[in-house]
Amino acid sequence: MPTDQLSATFSALADPTRRAILARLALGETSVTELAGPFAMSMPAVSKHLKVLERAGLIARGREAQWRPCRIEVQALKPVDEWLENYRRLWEQRFDRLDDYLRELQAQEQDKEKKQGGRAKTKKEKSRGAKK
Amino acid sequence: MPTDQLSATFSALADPTRRAILARLALGETSVTELAGPFAMSMPAVSKHLKVLERAGLIARGREAQWRPCRIEVQALKPVDEWLENYRRLWEQRFDRLDDYLRELQAQEQDKEKKQGGRAKTKKEKSRGAKK
Repeated sequence: MPTDQLSATFSALADPTRRAILARLALGETSVTELAGPFAMSMPAVSKHLKVLERAGLIARGREAQWRPCRIEVQALKPVDEWLENYRRLWEQRFDRLDDYLRELQAQEQDKEKKQGGRAKTKKEKSRGAKK
Repeated sequence: MPTDQLSATFSALADPTRRAILARLALGETSVTELAGPFAMSMPAVSKHLKVLERAGLIARGREAQWRPCRIEVQALKPVDEWLENYRRLWEQRFDRLDDYLRELQAQEQDKEKKQGGRAKTKKEKSRGAKK
């Protein structure tokens, strides 16, 4: 059982049914019965998933005895976004470095062509020439 | 055990030690021994965490028999970022709505003040006046 909040959030998200429940709730609040419908799951199974989501603060449930509507608490996902921020910077840097490298390769190629005096024949053109 | 990739990623992130390992590896690749140091953990415990991260594709390990450096595979976090995208939009919308609501309240307040004929005294000013 995760003890810190961020671990509890990640743990709650580590299940495709729970993510599907969140996706449904992102459209608007609904009852447990309505939620259970598209998942072809028993009510206790859905309730169990809802409890995990509720403990992680990702959903909240109404207080009405008969109809306890569930709603998404989307701001509970913000810490995940903030955690990702540093890594996002890292993959953007890596992508930029790859981009620089490809530009450099291209520049070298163009430089080589210029030194060879005009446009060099490609392999394809050479083989085409040989066939004639 | 999660069966889909995104669940495996979320599950691997649902542990503070594993997130700390990723944070360390974001600074550069390192050996398991070096990794174990700051965590005051046994090598088997660290190895277990590394296996979870490796299975989720979040880290990769070198092939050298003596020194198997670990490195972060930061692009494995992109699907998490993409999954978050829809929810990010949702919390921004909610924030915008709250912002609109506050602006509306402020406008109503200003409108009320105008109708009362000029600038109304604040509570503070009234109490200051009474003290004189």
